[in-house]
Amino acid sequence: MAPCLSFFFLFLCSFSAIPANSLPTFFPGAAYQSLIKQAKISKPKLPFKTHYFPQTLDHFTFQPKSSKLFYQKYLINSDYWRKGAPIFVYTGNEGNIEWFAANTGFMLDIAPKFKALLVFIEHRFYGKSMPFGKDSYQSAKTLGYLNSQQALADFAVLITSLKQNLSSEASPVVVFGGSYGGMLAAWFRLKYPHIAIGALASSAPILQFDKLIPWSSFYDAVSQDFKDVSLNCYQVIKGSWAELEAMSTQKQALAELSKTFRTCKSLHSTASARDWLWTAFVYTAMVNYPTKADFMKPLPAYPVQKMCKIIDKIPSRATKLSRAFAAASLYYNYSRSENCFKIEHEVDGHGLHGWDWQTCTEMVMPMTCSKESMFPPSGFDYEEFAEQCRMKYGVSPRPHWITTEFGGEKVLKRFGSNIIFSNGMQDPWSRGGVLKNISSSIIALVTEKGAHHVDFRSATKKDPKWLIQLRKQEVEIIQKWLNEYYADL
Amino acid sequence: MAPCLSFFFLFLCSFSAIPANSLPTFFPGAAYQSLIKQAKISKPKLPFKTHYFPQTLDHFTFQPKSSKLFYQKYLINSDYWRKGAPIFVYTGNEGNIEWFAANTGFMLDIAPKFKALLVFIEHRFYGKSMPFGKDSYQSAKTLGYLNSQQALADFAVLITSLKQNLSSEASPVVVFGGSYGGMLAAWFRLKYPHIAIGALASSAPILQFDKLIPWSSFYDAVSQDFKDVSLNCYQVIKGSWAELEAMSTQKQALAELSKTFRTCKSLHSTASARDWLWTAFVYTAMVNYPTKADFMKPLPAYPVQKMCKIIDKIPSRATKLSRAFAAASLYYNYSRSENCFKIEHEVDGHGLHGWDWQTCTEMVMPMTCSKESMFPPSGFDYEEFAEQCRMKYGVSPRPHWITTEFGGEKVLKRFGSNIIFSNGMQDPWSRGGVLKNISSSIIALVTEKGAHHVDFRSATKKDPKWLIQLRKQEVEIIQKWLNEYYADL
Repeated sequence: MAPCLSFFFLFLCSFSAIPANSLPTFFPGAAYQSLIKQAKISKPKLPFKTHYFPQTLDHFTFQPKSSKLFYQKYLINSDYWRKGAPIFVYTGNEGNIEWFAANTGFMLDIAPKFKALLVFIEHRFYGKSMPFGKDSYQSAKTLGYLNSQQALADFAVLITSLKQNLSSEASPVVVFGGSYGGMLAAWFRLKYPHIAIGALASSAPILQFDKLIPWSSFYDAVSQDFKDVSLNCYQVIKGSWAELEAMSTQKQALAELSKTFRTCKSLHSTASARDWLWTAFVYTAMVNYPTKADFMKPLPAYPVQKMCKIIDKIPSRATKLSRAFAAASLYYNYSRSENCFKIEHEVDGHGLHGWDWQTCTEMVMPMTCSKESMFPPSGFDYEEFAEQCRMKYGVSPRPHWITTEFGGEKVLKRFGSNIIFSNGMQDPWSRGGVLKNISSSIIALVTEKGAHHVDFRSATKKDPKWLIQLRKQEVEIIQKWLNEYYADL
Repeated sequence: MAPCLSFFFLFLCSFSAIPANSLPTFFPGAAYQSLIKQAKISKPKLPFKTHYFPQTLDHFTFQPKSSKLFYQKYLINSDYWRKGAPIFVYTGNEGNIEWFAANTGFMLDIAPKFKALLVFIEHRFYGKSMPFGKDSYQSAKTLGYLNSQQALADFAVLITSLKQNLSSEASPVVVFGGSYGGMLAAWFRLKYPHIAIGALASSAPILQFDKLIPWSSFYDAVSQDFKDVSLNCYQVIKGSWAELEAMSTQKQALAELSKTFRTCKSLHSTASARDWLWTAFVYTAMVNYPTKADFMKPLPAYPVQKMCKIIDKIPSRATKLSRAFAAASLYYNYSRSENCFKIEHEVDGHGLHGWDWQTCTEMVMPMTCSKESMFPPSGFDYEEFAEQCRMKYGVSPRPHWITTEFGGEKVLKRFGSNIIFSNGMQDPWSRGGVLKNISSSIIALVTEKGAHHVDFRSATKKDPKWLIQLRKQEVEIIQKWLNEYYADL
């Protein structure tokens, strides 16, 4: 297998082309943070009040410094709430909490029906919830406190305190989360069932660890999305990498490539063009929504179809690379606001990002590209990956920790209850999700045409029937949990 | 309510009479550690091989120092095991693991029937499992890593690794624990159900926190044990404290008291005599076993009966205090090896003890003495207690953490499964235990005549029928879990 460039640092330092046999984990939050910095996207106006909770730095040790407090941000909407009614909590993931609130309109949509209080809790070390202020990302000494178990304990402490302050201890809590936030929601229900009566985990790849699923499944799924639309489209993209690779040894190639890719500045390497294409195809597969949307970037309905239409329309005498570029441009320039593309981003001054840290410590998700995928074949060399992490942060990953701490599918069988795992098969993360019912109350809701937590988006008039039906099922199941809870009181 | 002396430091520094409105948590392990030091009790010969596992210092942070390894001791007996058969793990509590192995003969007794591998894992910061060697107890900086969640994660990592090394990943694991070890076993099943298929938690007071049970229940239960045997016995002990209290203001009283109490050296205060009596009554209630036993100290069968017989036999013209002393002597001198009593122990050089640390951080178990108890009435002043902890360790307790992290009874209802809570009502800790079935697989086995994890003791020919029956029930339930597990494979 050919080695492939490190995509872990994709959005932050595309210049630092450290060769490594490891592929990126494309979680939206991580990328979005960089997009915000680059594009200075304006903050959405949301119907929430902002609060800050004095949170304990380290829940699991009792050194003098462990009890240091930091201020954890959370958002509240109480427009529909009455005391004693449910509390719906979004377990924040790797980004500003506003972004998740803006993209989880589903909770606002259903709040009136349940008279629910809505709470969106920001994940420590993201957004404004910085335990060491501006120094939070300084080194492993500070970042050491950034991990999923501390985040879950944060949620537990904050929710418990909030209920006391509201004098509404008997209010049932349901947790919601998408992507990594969905993993947190499911794990929260598993580890803190006394605090949350149920969890709706949307597009939560809780099985993307260790050897629980085939390592090639993510990129096979991306490829399948394109292949399902058009075999030609899949073949063009698959063939484009070799053309790009060939250019890396040709004189004048970078000038030509810069022209083809309409870059704002001349390219210094082919690697950045490769990252740029790669990102476009992966994220477009993830957000292959049935309606126009602006999650990562503004895109039309079913953008994979649109990309393939672009490729299929271009005569086959054009190079595969130019056709792949044309398709990728849809992702970067659907709004037609770009005259040229900033393919080589500026290096991020911090050189560190929270999700990158998490993948280098606990969130080790091995990924490979099989020969059948539309990406260049590549393996996963754990030792090389670990060495990169040690170089960058001075710590070694714990590749088996997540499965030790949270288990795989097995944990759910005779034990867990009241969890919905919803997955859209367009989303490559679905392959690491729970796709079959595990018990009468651990339910897998799978939609063939769904994408990355599509169910969490605000309802629109153009929503297809299957999406309306999916959300209806979710509401019914949550209602059932609540009925059981109130009957037990 | 009258203030009462601090019993938290009872065994270690009876000279340091810090007044405080807080009562001790009489967990056997803590006391036994001191007994070993004083009496130089010889180590029992056990059919186990000793091993050491390289364990991670901090499972829940990723600072460079978090991944420091220490050697965690564990004991193995594979005499009856065949690959694929069950693994029975004792989740070690606050003491040397050998002591728990010696007092959990039940596991050895049932191993042949199940062809089970037996594993006794020592709790971090006890016995030989010292993360910082001799410096482990130096300060809160080192002790900070001593807590129940880190201990549970230790068990998870060690068991997972052990199964891999034995190439016996499919072996079902059942966890066993008594007292604090029983709390750990139950919590382990709740938090790591993917690693243990069930838990037998004997005398595990998982509800002894926050306001889950009345704070006076522990001492009311001790008193009830004595009252049930003889009302006179209860009244004599109840009246003895005032006589002792009165002596503290009398001249020559300490000389007289030293004589009455047959002390090896003259007493410096009445407080130590009080602690000495108190300890005897509490521990004797806990170990009110139906057969002769040597758990804390050698004692006859039903020692509470014997104590009350001593009191009831002495003519009522004798002082209550002298009669209480005579009864307490049974606890300290049943083997008649003592010519005099070392009532004022030497101050422990370390000045710190693991269980004391745990009560000052996470294991905050509020206790009071009601007017109905046979002890002097006393309250629980949290602020004073917290101040003591801050003075001693420089850290503040987190009094609501255990209920936030593990929940109370509620957690078990719609969620947990496969846990046996066994409790003997003679044991005052039973009042903090689960005494009623919670679901079809969370079973409470309660025996009126049982004492502190009596079911875990080796079977003897003199065991009463109810004890034989109790152990039989436990074996049947464990067999049922195993059958279900194997049927699922």
